[in-house]
Amino acid sequence: MKILVANPNTSTGVTDRLVAAGRLVASPGTELLPMTAPRGVPYIATRAEAAIGSAVMLEMLAEKRGTFDAAICAAFGDPGLGGARELFDFPIVGMAEAAMLMACTLGRKFAIVSFAKALEPWFAEIVDWHGMSGRCAAIQMLDSAFTNINDVAEEKEQLLVDLANRVVTHNGADVVILAGAPLAGLATKLRERVPVPLVDGIQAAVTMAEGLVRLNPRKATLGTFRRPGPKESKGLSDSLANVIAHRDA
Amino acid sequence: MKILVANPNTSTGVTDRLVAAGRLVASPGTELLPMTAPRGVPYIATRAEAAIGSAVMLEMLAEKRGTFDAAICAAFGDPGLGGARELFDFPIVGMAEAAMLMACTLGRKFAIVSFAKALEPWFAEIVDWHGMSGRCAAIQMLDSAFTNINDVAEEKEQLLVDLANRVVTHNGADVVILAGAPLAGLATKLRERVPVPLVDGIQAAVTMAEGLVRLNPRKATLGTFRRPGPKESKGLSDSLANVIAHRDA
Amino acid sequence: MKILVANPNTSTGVTDRLVAAGRLVASPGTELLPMTAPRGVPYIATRAEAAIGSAVMLEMLAEKRGTFDAAICAAFGDPGLGGARELFDFPIVGMAEAAMLMACTLGRKFAIVSFAKALEPWFAEIVDWHGMSGRCAAIQMLDSAFTNINDVAEEKEQLLVDLANRVVTHNGADVVILAGAPLAGLATKLRERVPVPLVDGIQAAVTMAEGLVRLNPRKATLGTFRRPGPKESKGLSDSLANVIAHRDA
Amino acid sequence: MKILVANPNTSTGVTDRLVAAGRLVASPGTELLPMTAPRGVPYIATRAEAAIGSAVMLEMLAEKRGTFDAAICAAFGDPGLGGARELFDFPIVGMAEAAMLMACTLGRKFAIVSFAKALEPWFAEIVDWHGMSGRCAAIQMLDSAFTNINDVAEEKEQLLVDLANRVVTHNGADVVILAGAPLAGLATKLRERVPVPLVDGIQAAVTMAEGLVRLNPRKATLGTFRRPGPKESKGLSDSLANVIAHRDA
Amino acid sequence: MKILVANPNTSTGVTDRLVAAGRLVASPGTELLPMTAPRGVPYIATRAEAAIGSAVMLEMLAEKRGTFDAAICAAFGDPGLGGARELFDFPIVGMAEAAMLMACTLGRKFAIVSFAKALEPWFAEIVDWHGMSGRCAAIQMLDSAFTNINDVAEEKEQLLVDLANRVVTHNGADVVILAGAPLAGLATKLRERVPVPLVDGIQAAVTMAEGLVRLNPRKATLGTFRRPGPKESKGLSDSLANVIAHRDA
Amino acid sequence: MKILVANPNTSTGVTDRLVAAGRLVASPGTELLPMTAPRGVPYIATRAEAAIGSAVMLEMLAEKRGTFDAAICAAFGDPGLGGARELFDFPIVGMAEAAMLMACTLGRKFAIVSFAKALEPWFAEIVDWHGMSGRCAAIQMLDSAFTNINDVAEEKEQLLVDLANRVVTHNGADVVILAGAPLAGLATKLRERVPVPLVDGIQAAVTMAEGLVRLNPRKATLGTFRRPGPKESKGLSDSLANVIAHRDA
Repeated sequence: MKILVANPNTSTGVTDRLVAAGRLVASPGTELLPMTAPRGVPYIATRAEAAIGSAVMLEMLAEKRGTFDAAICAAFGDPGLGGARELFDFPIVGMAEAAMLMACTLGRKFAIVSFAKALEPWFAEIVDWHGMSGRCAAIQMLDSAFTNINDVAEEKEQLLVDLANRVVTHNGADVVILAGAPLAGLATKLRERVPVPLVDGIQAAVTMAEGLVRLNPRKATLGTFRRPGPKESKGLSDSLANVIAHRDA
Repeated sequence: MKILVANPNTSTGVTDRLVAAGRLVASPGTELLPMTAPRGVPYIATRAEAAIGSAVMLEMLAEKRGTFDAAICAAFGDPGLGGARELFDFPIVGMAEAAMLMACTLGRKFAIVSFAKALEPWFAEIVDWHGMSGRCAAIQMLDSAFTNINDVAEEKEQLLVDLANRVVTHNGADVVILAGAPLAGLATKLRERVPVPLVDGIQAAVTMAEGLVRLNPRKATLGTFRRPGPKESKGLSDSLANVIAHRDA
Repeated sequence: MKILVANPNTSTGVTDRLVAAGRLVASPGTELLPMTAPRGVPYIATRAEAAIGSAVMLEMLAEKRGTFDAAICAAFGDPGLGGARELFDFPIVGMAEAAMLMACTLGRKFAIVSFAKALEPWFAEIVDWHGMSGRCAAIQMLDSAFTNINDVAEEKEQLLVDLANRVVTHNGADVVILAGAPLAGLATKLRERVPVPLVDGIQAAVTMAEGLVRLNPRKATLGTFRRPGPKESKGLSDSLANVIAHRDA
Repeated sequence: MKILVANPNTSTGVTDRLVAAGRLVASPGTELLPMTAPRGVPYIATRAEAAIGSAVMLEMLAEKRGTFDAAICAAFGDPGLGGARELFDFPIVGMAEAAMLMACTLGRKFAIVSFAKALEPWFAEIVDWHGMSGRCAAIQMLDSAFTNINDVAEEKEQLLVDLANRVVTHNGADVVILAGAPLAGLATKLRERVPVPLVDGIQAAVTMAEGLVRLNPRKATLGTFRRPGPKESKGLSDSLANVIAHRDA
Repeated sequence: MKILVANPNTSTGVTDRLVAAGRLVASPGTELLPMTAPRGVPYIATRAEAAIGSAVMLEMLAEKRGTFDAAICAAFGDPGLGGARELFDFPIVGMAEAAMLMACTLGRKFAIVSFAKALEPWFAEIVDWHGMSGRCAAIQMLDSAFTNINDVAEEKEQLLVDLANRVVTHNGADVVILAGAPLAGLATKLRERVPVPLVDGIQAAVTMAEGLVRLNPRKATLGTFRRPGPKESKGLSDSLANVIAHRDA
Repeated sequence: MKILVANPNTSTGVTDRLVAAGRLVASPGTELLPMTAPRGVPYIATRAEAAIGSAVMLEMLAEKRGTFDAAICAAFGDPGLGGARELFDFPIVGMAEAAMLMACTLGRKFAIVSFAKALEPWFAEIVDWHGMSGRCAAIQMLDSAFTNINDVAEEKEQLLVDLANRVVTHNGADVVILAGAPLAGLATKLRERVPVPLVDGIQAAVTMAEGLVRLNPRKATLGTFRRPGPKESKGLSDSLANVIAHRDA
């Protein structure tokens, strides 16, 4: 099966990292299709940037629709996820969503750990949006500058191990999510250095996307994710405008 | 004082209605500046359209910044509100937010009533985002087609009165919010036809925006609404790119 | 318009401070009418004293009804607010209520800071009563004695600045409410010494009361704030007994 | 042991009914001391009346202190309960509180049923205040006038049975609280006419008060129910003023 | 009346301690019948052991049914309580349940303190199951090994006093529950060494069980605690199999 | 990989149905190992039966440990799941858990539909235990008798379709979980007869178990699912006693 890894950040380095980490857990026969945002910021970190990224995500999915079996909204805050579930009929899963859902099978409470203070409010809002606050022990970020978004995982490795250990001993986390696309692959590497399971967003998303393809759910025609009726628009990308206008048959 | 009424829908008819309704309650000396979205859909009704509208809202505010004292995010689901509070230093209030906060002073539970079934999931999410679900008795929508977005308030007037009465008697609402920009002004007109207070989003927003200007709060330099550090971007409107890059001094 | 500032404490010094702070933000043409409790305690600080003050608040409003356009329940715990909304047909807003609602437009989470440990349980209950616990990051009080209730704002100024800074850095507050009638006016003075917006209860209440008068909501005849039917009583103040018996036409 | 049944309503008929119902379940050796409010309304039904009754409850307890081992705040909305726990060192239990706590041992969800629509908002607030909303399946009231508060239990008996049955079959109640002092004793009488356990507020309160006396808990000197420091007041009853001023040794 | 103290642990020393502590508060005429689990572990401390103990509890109650008026599920996590309420028609109360319900009458927030870290997750789940998380300030355990389960109360006495004091000053507890069957009786002994009321699970359970017998509630024939229909089983104890098959008349 | 399908019911017919439905979605190379409870009831439907089944589940897993890569707790209420995560080091997923987590990716709110009224309280508790109540729109059961547990899916097919449609239109469900082991496989068959996605517990569990094996999380040595220390027991199955005593190396 083919799974689109739609990275709403403009950094192709981050996309490469996501795909490499995802391949470590993908089933034989699963192909991960990389896609990098054509516009926006190198790395989404705030609610303002997520608003921009949400719109870009819809454009990206509209452009590539028909070429894959399922899609991954490949930034931890799941920008555009709700809207995508309205517009499209393929399964789509968010990285934050998949990480949290998988974490629920590994502990009573998970913690979310990442590398930049700026991410915290956005992550807190996505935890709430998914109704997962009751399962979340803490959201904790490093608070120091980093050199390069593509190498932040290596640069901050020991600090992230320390922080992960701290949320276990101080915040009662049973499982730790290493959050943020630039940290993709780190959970595998650090497996033995934290005393609880680590969850990697892209890896969780790949396994859930595979599961969804196998479960083969129908597209809703009622409920909140039914497709909205056709509507004209102006100023949007052609492919997205076509989807919104139902000119995508 | 000057208050920007930033309508993220592309319908100027809706903008006109918003400004007319707002003027009924504005203080002497308050000027409402109308602005209509340059791109997007005529009327935002879904999460997908709200994602697009959120990005457009940020562009609109970036373009006009410096010409007003406060802004109103003038669609009921408050698209882009959180991001706007990060990026900008002027007070900004959402129509859903203002309606719910004012409703809290008029009843223990409010209900939200509007004209189109499609709006319900988006409205439900904005109620949650504001942490107001505990004060919300019901979100109820009419379920029939309408002829024209600019005249839907008149076309559906009696049905909306009936629905407002029903949420009072069946759902325990102490106050009813007539939600959605196309219903602006209706609360004043229907005042005596529903046995509890009616709240109009734009009118609530105008009074709260005025209050915020008088309270004159400082811009946060810490906390989740501090301004993010400067960042480069690509493909965004010049004014928004400049704000994100801190080239807006 | 005329707004009654009904102070349920017996200290006229506190009433003077409330009115002075309120005037700083009132619109041109708004007159603040001071009223001090004729019986009770100099400064309400506990649930027992709030119970007494709630009954006194109803007496005060009954006595002055007909002489103002809106009323402010001018103690931070909003004593008697719910009952007042049943009995009377003018808009009334509580100081805790107004502060919290305004704070919601300035941050995701607010903190409440005040000068006396004894106030904490009462304040915690009013936050819950308003359904605002999900937006409240912390309630923190100074824990040292003060010399005089009328001058406590000046005496504890630096300690309050320190505490406000602490709730921002330690508790994640985006906005800080300086709570309690004796601190009225302090938010304006300390504006630049705390890195997030400060909210003053009386100032928030004045702007919300003005907004409510402009919105001109009807009195509910259904729902939980409809007026109760007439009832006889014994031992109450004449004016309150008359309101309860519907002898107030 | 001696238990004060402090009825904050002015109807002695209601007091008599409470004591008679309480005696049916009291242990041998337990004496119930009746006390009727000297001022207020015949039957508290609203938040405004509860505010008055809360202050009266504190006066009543202050007057009789020293003559009993425990007290019951004998109206279903528990007026003044929080304040009483601050001021006094004897155990005190509310009728709503005791009914809900006992109901928790008899079912996953309880419903509250009573005779007058006006009571609903007040009861809803006391359920919340006790943190019991998650265990409450429904609050349902009869909606017809009654002839006399002293005989309402007999007059509405069949309607209350019907309503109790309805909350079991329609609202998922495992146990039904027959709420309100005027219904005291009805649970015993109707035991076989509703298919789930019935709970009577005064009977639950008598058994919990007895239990508290046997457990003999100490008075808190820290925490939110520690006694407040001494304070002067004006215009209060002598006995209450003395308690507040610590002149009650 | 006769109350069965059903200890699902296999330690008779713990049973003896429970009965001795319970007798200190039992009414004249109340007889406590001790029963110790015939199989399982000496002291239940985890969710796995509680799962085993839940099944054993049902067997114990089935075996002794008909010989008592009420039963106490005498381990703090209330193993088997929900199932017991389905199967049997006598009142039954859990030690955690009774302790928390009684604590609610003594403070706004209770804390749970016990002697072994391993107990924490199990206790946290029982607090949630009872819907009491909103009233729970903290669950805190000692974190050091103990010599003997029968003497752990004496061995850890000072450490438990210190921990109880800490939850009052650091976590805002108004009342402290000394949890776990091996600590039975300690609350009485330590009464003056902690500045808030202490609650003992078995003592709370005895007084609530007495109250339930006096209230004499009927067995539900509808709702979630109605008795399930008869069903065959295999491999269960004869007495439990008979109850499940309705061969217990 | 090998996945143990541990059915805590004693019906082998139900086990066969589970395995057949699971195979429809299993990856190539996945082998499902069936196991049926050696003791207990034919079909667990109540909290009492779940208590028994929880203990049996632990025995089953202890007996087969070492012969599979992951296990499924194959009854909808997930009996014994928490305890199993403490004792064992292989991934284990519950059928209710997997169904709800997968449903979260397909809708904002799921409903749970099943064939017997008796199941409702047990299912309600497992939804709460997983912290999923906020995502659950309704739990609705058929209320008529059935002939045979092995054929109930076929017997009630049309009634289940009707009920599933009703929770979509009346309760706002975006996705419907057909719950209970005897309904395994029905979701596939009814896919086109309900306008929203249907989720089958065993199929969701198989895909999540596969995902967990691929993610290869470590066993926690801290947090609430660390393995408890060794403990002696009496009267348990040898294999479970050995696991509890750490004699399973």
